[in-house]
Order: sequence, then structure tokens, then C-alpha cells
Amino acid sequence: MSGRLYGLGLGPGDPELLTLKAHRLLASCEVVAYPTLEDGESFARSIVSDYLQDWQREIAIRIPMTVERGPAQAAYDRASRELSDCLDSGHQVAVLCEGDPFFYGSFMYLFGRLAARFPTEVVPGVTSLTACAAALGAPLAARNDTLAILPAPLPDEELEERIRAFDAVAIIKPGRHFARVQALLLRMGLQDQARYVERATLATQRILSMQEVAEDGVPYFSMILIHRRGDAWR
Amino acid sequence: MSGRLYGLGLGPGDPELLTLKAHRLLASCEVVAYPTLEDGESFARSIVSDYLQDWQREIAIRIPMTVERGPAQAAYDRASRELSDCLDSGHQVAVLCEGDPFFYGSFMYLFGRLAARFPTEVVPGVTSLTACAAALGAPLAARNDTLAILPAPLPDEELEERIRAFDAVAIIKPGRHFARVQALLLRMGLQDQARYVERATLATQRILSMQEVAEDGVPYFSMILIHRRGDAWR
Repeated sequence: MSGRLYGLGLGPGDPELLTLKAHRLLASCEVVAYPTLEDGESFARSIVSDYLQDWQREIAIRIPMTVERGPAQAAYDRASRELSDCLDSGHQVAVLCEGDPFFYGSFMYLFGRLAARFPTEVVPGVTSLTACAAALGAPLAARNDTLAILPAPLPDEELEERIRAFDAVAIIKPGRHFARVQALLLRMGLQDQARYVERATLATQRILSMQEVAEDGVPYFSMILIHRRGDAWR
Repeated sequence: MSGRLYGLGLGPGDPELLTLKAHRLLASCEVVAYPTLEDGESFARSIVSDYLQDWQREIAIRIPMTVERGPAQAAYDRASRELSDCLDSGHQVAVLCEGDPFFYGSFMYLFGRLAARFPTEVVPGVTSLTACAAALGAPLAARNDTLAILPAPLPDEELEERIRAFDAVAIIKPGRHFARVQALLLRMGLQDQARYVERATLATQRILSMQEVAEDGVPYFSMILIHRRGDAWR
């Protein structure tokens, strides 16, 4: 009997935002795998570090952050071979996923390589999208609002057109694109409708207006939320 | 000292998809309020019925389902007066919210009436959006995908234009609009890219292709997910 593969959504960062299900499954898996940066730091692991147990085997998946996709794909190939061996031995394998495994998550690369061969379950998690809205104290979308999720690397014209066409917008992955997107939103006159949220639900969480964010680059775990009606909830 | 108001995201339906935080806060609140249909049935309450305790006071908020907004607004006015009395007495009040309180949720109507006067915390929850993607075993969005959330009541032309412009689309609240949206998606040739998910994470969950859904109307808790690339995760 082979083991089961679990993609566990861990939520946005506060360890208490794990679901009861992810918490239970995590405690039962012999193997716990997670992506790490090349320096070895893993945000996903840090979320659940208090829940991990000595007898669990940890597998850190080092993903090179290169523009070309080849090196990352090779890393996922290697990782999926290592996890296959664990699953073939009958071990349960949890893959830790920040937020939700299928909402802009890297779990899909392992899922694509392993789900056809092993019983696989994806456990959805709280996304940073709604965690940021909660942090802001402002509804993300209501009634018949249209809502767009837009990655910041898109070109200005494409961002502008889509922002104009929707009631509510989340701009994700601002990172090194922040200054450009900030300039665009100010040019569009959206300074009162847009808010920047960084590291939602962590002790280091920050909420800033578009004018207040001074940095050229912002952390990966940040987002800009825009709603045309500040009073959507009245 | 007044009590605290909590908007608790309960997730899509499986009671195990509550967060540890919502589970803890729910157990500590003297008052538990939730919206109900006029026949008294409450989906939010059903999710946590096993977690409720005898000493907790329950307040059912009956919301009339009328097209004009007046009667519903009056019901929220009445409910907020009742919850104000509880909070003034120093009681902690949990408002139960299916999914996430700020993702197309009705909690915002109470939030708008009470958050300025009482300490308020919104606890984000797993949305049906990612729960449906997990049920399908297909990533919702990846890398620089654009993702649109579109309520089905929008007119055909508007839906079509937005669907064409995005990599991934979730059509929410199909209900009595299902047959029209189904016809639109088939006309657009999206039968292989679109999937219908009903009551995700519940025992009654169903996943169907667009052609398989025969009903004129479908349950409120259903969604259509579309992704242009079936192979986003390879």
C-alpha cells in the first residue's frame, strides 16, 4: 500500500489560521516537505514550526529563483522522485503550502508530477486575499461586485484596463514591480481606494496608503487591495 | 467594558475546515448569531452545530429574500440593535459566516453598523473558491495568471467579455441564472475548460461538466470554474 500525498494549505501566516483538518493531517504524516529559498529559509515551515514533531522526517525542497524555468523544473523533478520513494514505502507525505495550495501556489508542480500515481488530497487554506481584507477591515467584494486578481508583473496598460473594468481588484506579487504599480494607481487617482498590506496576520503586519509606501521593492508577501466604493458595506 | 464582536469565517461547509482560531473564539463567546432563511434554516449554524454549547445564547437573524433591499436592511438594523445590547452588557458576540466574512458575505452589513462602536475582529476563512479548486483537483490560478470572480447575474455580454479577457474565471452565485450561463459557456466553446462544483467539501458534493448539469436552477452553494489551460500545473 502506497502512502497518501497531502497538499496542506496553511493560511497566510498566523499559525492559528491553519484549519482543524490541516492541523490533524500534519500531525499524522511521517514526512513533511516544504519549499525553501536557496538560503534555506522556508516561510511555510515557519508557520507550523510549533506543530512539527521530532519523529517526522523533513524534506526541504530548494527551488532556484531564476527567470528561466528549467532549474526550478529540475528541482521539482528531483523532489518528486524523493517524495515518490517515501510514498512507495507507505509513508504519508504532507507538502506545506502557504495560503492555499491551488491559489498561485507552487504545490501544483508536485501535484502535476505525483497526483496521477499516488492518492492525493488537497486541503484548502485561508488565502492572503481574504486575510488582507480582514486586516484592512474592509469587505473585499459584495453582492454583484466583480473582483479581479492581477499579478503586478503585468504591463501597465493591461493592469490599467482591467482595474478600470472591475469593482474590486487585488494586485498580488508586487515585489520589485511596486514602484511602477504605485505610480500607475496614483496616476489613475485611486489613492483613496487602494491600500497596501504587508505580511497580513503576522506580528510584522503593516497597512499603508499608496503614498506612504516609500520602498522601491516590497516583500513578496504583500498585496494591494482596491475597491471603488469605500462604503461597499453600508 | 463592552464585549467584542467577531466575524468568524467558517469555511465552505466541512466543519473540519474551520481555522483553529475560529474554533477557539467560537468556544469562548457568550452569544452566537447567524443569518437564517425565513424558514429558519441556517447553513452557517449547521457547519458548527457540533461545536455549539448549551450555555451559549443563539440569535438567529432572519433575512427576507426580497429583490428590494429595504426589508433586508431593516432586518440588519434590528439585528444590530439586538447585538449592541449584548455587547453593551459585556458579552462576546460571534457572528457565523459561511466561507469568509468579507468575500461576498452578508457580515459586512453588521460590520458597517457595529464596527465603529465596538471592538471588532474579522477572522478570515477558507472560501468556496479554493475549496472548489481543491475538489476539482485543478489549480485555480498560477504564476502570472489573471483571475476574475464574476457573479452570474451579470448580463451575458459583460460575462463573455470578461471571460475572454482572463486566464481563469470563477462564476459565483449561478442559482437561477445557471441555464443562461451554461448556454453562454457552451456557445463560447468552453465545455472542456469549465467545471461545475456544487456543495464543495460536504458529503453531498457534486462535480459535473457543463453538459451534465440538467437542472434549470442549481443550489446557491455552487460555482463554475474555468481555466483556459487545463495543464496549468505541468
